[in-house]
Amino acid sequence: MCRWLAYTGNPIQLETVVFRAKHSLIDQSLHSRMGATTTNGDGFGIGWYGQPHEAPFLYRSVSPAWHDRNLREAARAIRSPLFIAHIRAATETPVQETNCHPFRHNRWLFAHNGLIRDFHALRRDLMLSIDPALFGAIEGSTDSEVMFYLALTYGLEQQPVAALERMAGRIEQIAAGHGVENPLNMTVCATDGEQVVAVRYSSEHQSRTLFHSTSFKHLHELYPHDPRISAVGEDAFLVLSEPLVDLHDAWEAIPESTAVVARRGSITQQAFAPRVRS
Amino acid sequence: MCRWLAYTGNPIQLETVVFRAKHSLIDQSLHSRMGATTTNGDGFGIGWYGQPHEAPFLYRSVSPAWHDRNLREAARAIRSPLFIAHIRAATETPVQETNCHPFRHNRWLFAHNGLIRDFHALRRDLMLSIDPALFGAIEGSTDSEVMFYLALTYGLEQQPVAALERMAGRIEQIAAGHGVENPLNMTVCATDGEQVVAVRYSSEHQSRTLFHSTSFKHLHELYPHDPRISAVGEDAFLVLSEPLVDLHDAWEAIPESTAVVARRGSITQQAFAPRVRS
Amino acid sequence: MCRWLAYTGNPIQLETVVFRAKHSLIDQSLHSRMGATTTNGDGFGIGWYGQPHEAPFLYRSVSPAWHDRNLREAARAIRSPLFIAHIRAATETPVQETNCHPFRHNRWLFAHNGLIRDFHALRRDLMLSIDPALFGAIEGSTDSEVMFYLALTYGLEQQPVAALERMAGRIEQIAAGHGVENPLNMTVCATDGEQVVAVRYSSEHQSRTLFHSTSFKHLHELYPHDPRISAVGEDAFLVLSEPLVDLHDAWEAIPESTAVVARRGSITQQAFAPRVRS
Amino acid sequence: MCRWLAYTGNPIQLETVVFRAKHSLIDQSLHSRMGATTTNGDGFGIGWYGQPHEAPFLYRSVSPAWHDRNLREAARAIRSPLFIAHIRAATETPVQETNCHPFRHNRWLFAHNGLIRDFHALRRDLMLSIDPALFGAIEGSTDSEVMFYLALTYGLEQQPVAALERMAGRIEQIAAGHGVENPLNMTVCATDGEQVVAVRYSSEHQSRTLFHSTSFKHLHELYPHDPRISAVGEDAFLVLSEPLVDLHDAWEAIPESTAVVARRGSITQQAFAPRVRS
Repeated sequence: MCRWLAYTGNPIQLETVVFRAKHSLIDQSLHSRMGATTTNGDGFGIGWYGQPHEAPFLYRSVSPAWHDRNLREAARAIRSPLFIAHIRAATETPVQETNCHPFRHNRWLFAHNGLIRDFHALRRDLMLSIDPALFGAIEGSTDSEVMFYLALTYGLEQQPVAALERMAGRIEQIAAGHGVENPLNMTVCATDGEQVVAVRYSSEHQSRTLFHSTSFKHLHELYPHDPRISAVGEDAFLVLSEPLVDLHDAWEAIPESTAVVARRGSITQQAFAPRVRS
Repeated sequence: MCRWLAYTGNPIQLETVVFRAKHSLIDQSLHSRMGATTTNGDGFGIGWYGQPHEAPFLYRSVSPAWHDRNLREAARAIRSPLFIAHIRAATETPVQETNCHPFRHNRWLFAHNGLIRDFHALRRDLMLSIDPALFGAIEGSTDSEVMFYLALTYGLEQQPVAALERMAGRIEQIAAGHGVENPLNMTVCATDGEQVVAVRYSSEHQSRTLFHSTSFKHLHELYPHDPRISAVGEDAFLVLSEPLVDLHDAWEAIPESTAVVARRGSITQQAFAPRVRS
Repeated sequence: MCRWLAYTGNPIQLETVVFRAKHSLIDQSLHSRMGATTTNGDGFGIGWYGQPHEAPFLYRSVSPAWHDRNLREAARAIRSPLFIAHIRAATETPVQETNCHPFRHNRWLFAHNGLIRDFHALRRDLMLSIDPALFGAIEGSTDSEVMFYLALTYGLEQQPVAALERMAGRIEQIAAGHGVENPLNMTVCATDGEQVVAVRYSSEHQSRTLFHSTSFKHLHELYPHDPRISAVGEDAFLVLSEPLVDLHDAWEAIPESTAVVARRGSITQQAFAPRVRS
Repeated sequence: MCRWLAYTGNPIQLETVVFRAKHSLIDQSLHSRMGATTTNGDGFGIGWYGQPHEAPFLYRSVSPAWHDRNLREAARAIRSPLFIAHIRAATETPVQETNCHPFRHNRWLFAHNGLIRDFHALRRDLMLSIDPALFGAIEGSTDSEVMFYLALTYGLEQQPVAALERMAGRIEQIAAGHGVENPLNMTVCATDGEQVVAVRYSSEHQSRTLFHSTSFKHLHELYPHDPRISAVGEDAFLVLSEPLVDLHDAWEAIPESTAVVARRGSITQQAFAPRVRS
């Protein structure tokens, strides 16, 4: 359905990874190699952090990313130490800015690739599980935004991985009540500007692809003359739906049912298991 | 907030009333004289009926009506015996097609001018009152669409005026529970292609303006040489937020707390009173 | 590059060929099989004729055709005896409505797939060749629109095939002066609502594909139970970039350097050769 | 027609003057007090300079400025020492990004309020006066963009005021040949990131309004507690169509037929007279 990438590290121009790489996100919008759909032309979004005290910024548009001139300008103008970029292939919900990722709540950004099966049938029960105090903030009509507000309801801002596990558990619980099998398929990214949390999970354990960068220090040694690599610092970290360049040793697949947390150069990986709040 | 008009009568080109009149809907989009806001530039929509057996058609866009070239073409291309046109001035909700009026469900169209006060606070309870079977069809985020689905829940397709009264009653009931005073202000139009139902109502009895055309037969006699009038048949009927032309005798204000029903040349008017379903 | 189709025959709903066919134009917008690019997501347009006395109508948009809801409505609402539909893959010029096909002048519509090589270098000289009385009407920045106005300058409204030959000749002449080889590659369609003129030509004789329908009478006999065929009358005629369905006998390739003219059931085919006006 | 402002001084967030002032540019887009039209809802643009070595950036959109969420984000995200913001009220030319101001060529930005009378009739001759090497870069269809390319043709990058005088002279010369009286009405702004050049001129000497800020040092003393003023440094300079706030002493009208040049805190003012290149 969609493609996304998240970057944390030294501040770089967004275009370094959004436009300039050989198999950049823009290239993926026209012909993805690993996605369930080859064209991701139903809008896009970027979310980024600027000064430490500032709330994150959003630029979202319903244009296909490949022909949006403002995106090209923005990707050149913006330097950021942490950002998410997302290109959308709509399933059934309308193409409108409020359905474009990333979604934002206070300091948190959230992006998703995948789907909730039979979302239309489950939507009401899912929305009822959202904290009433958050309900009024829902602006769009996607399963992804509902997932974000469920995660916020279950404590995303305090314990992000546990909250995502409760979100997944709640979705599967509601789906079971409606007789929907294998309801959840997701790679998601959530960040507060400090940590990047990425999860690969699906009910049927056949999740969409998700990769992370390996050590850029190691890559600098391996490929000392590659300008695509030299702009990026040694502590940088990328999580993304598809590799950007075909460099051996540059990417590593994230296993099924796994959460990765990147925080100031430290990367931790843990098993991800949906849980039902008791 | 918004401006709308509904027409039923002999098939006419939409441009007759949307573009050509002296104080046409397009003119109102740039400088309304009676609206709460002077500029209605946050999208527009037209909904129209074609052949008797066909579901109604929609053209909705986020562009300001005054500069949308496709609207100009459509208004010239489309001839219809019954249509609604609406121009939007957004209050707090996003400018997106799914928030543009009219809304459609099966054969029904619905348009609204006004607001539900403190909608963000009431939204969850209002949405919970919608028939779960209809819930999945909600696409936008406006108070107006929620009003439509509430009316459908309360029987709009069977007894439209009574359903709108129950809708209003339910909104006021929920608002009372949240301590919101004078929650509802509306002029609304609902139609199934056979009848046009228009209501002017507000909790504080200070509703936005609403007018209907007087007898076109009478007007043909009074103004035999006015081409703006001669295109429209004797049985035609218009309901609208603001008069289109400054012809004496052409328009009559609809009183507060009143419902008007037009069906094949017969016009009936009745008191409108919110009711709470018991 | 682009994809287009033109229909003339009994009035049909546009959706019959734009949406419903197995390999419809919408399907081609996501993954063309024969185009120079697989994705045609940089806007679209439809132009159609209504009543005999009316000028043709346009609906053009920068959205990808596959997710434009208004197009879906329009294709259902519009019945027409003659129309053009076009989906765009922009080469270098901006994605904007004025660059979407078809272009219109008085009763004529014009659509193009292909390109003028080194258009930026040739543009000024090409525009200088346009009749000064037409110059002010140019709204966009594509090579295609310049081709249309050149054809109008050379008599499109009187002798369409000859005018298109002069247009091609002039383009090749100007290109030669700039040292540009093989400047022109085109399939074009021009119509005044009476006749449909389609040309397949390129300077290097390696033109993009172009097909026309064979006899629908024959097809009705061959496939009596195929609903995709039965809606279309026996005299109907389609010209198009790619076949809509994989029916044997339904389509015939138009040869290189050929013009086809369809007028009230009569189809003529002739050699096409650029000519320089002396 | 349009409204614009240009800022040079200490780096500030764009929102300081675009959104936050009492009579901000956004407010002017909904109801201008001094413009020829009250609504400026036909697109907008911002152009800004970042690091000294970088080419300027553009964000242009056809949305009305007042409801564009991305503009609100951008105005918060961007800090710049020199920028132009423009809101458009289209006269006859299409609403599309390539017709939105500012226009850009290399390091130069250009914005305009006003019009060339009978532009459609003069357009061809005006375009022929543009340097053929620049011709291919014209993307839109406005008189304003043609003015920019004429100014570039006449040396804007070397001697900006003289080039603008030659541009004005050439327009009046061509108009005279076509019998068009009082052809030019303009306030324009041109900048290369170092200097801001602003001109108020019209053939009939009844130009649209143009103001500049007076000394911010003086204003800091006069209004020490006004946060709208304290964010802006003492050397800052604003040129703009309408005052942003109703502070006495804050704004000064630029006289008819005058050019103002601001460069690193030094402001010079000189008479502006069209000249015909001999």
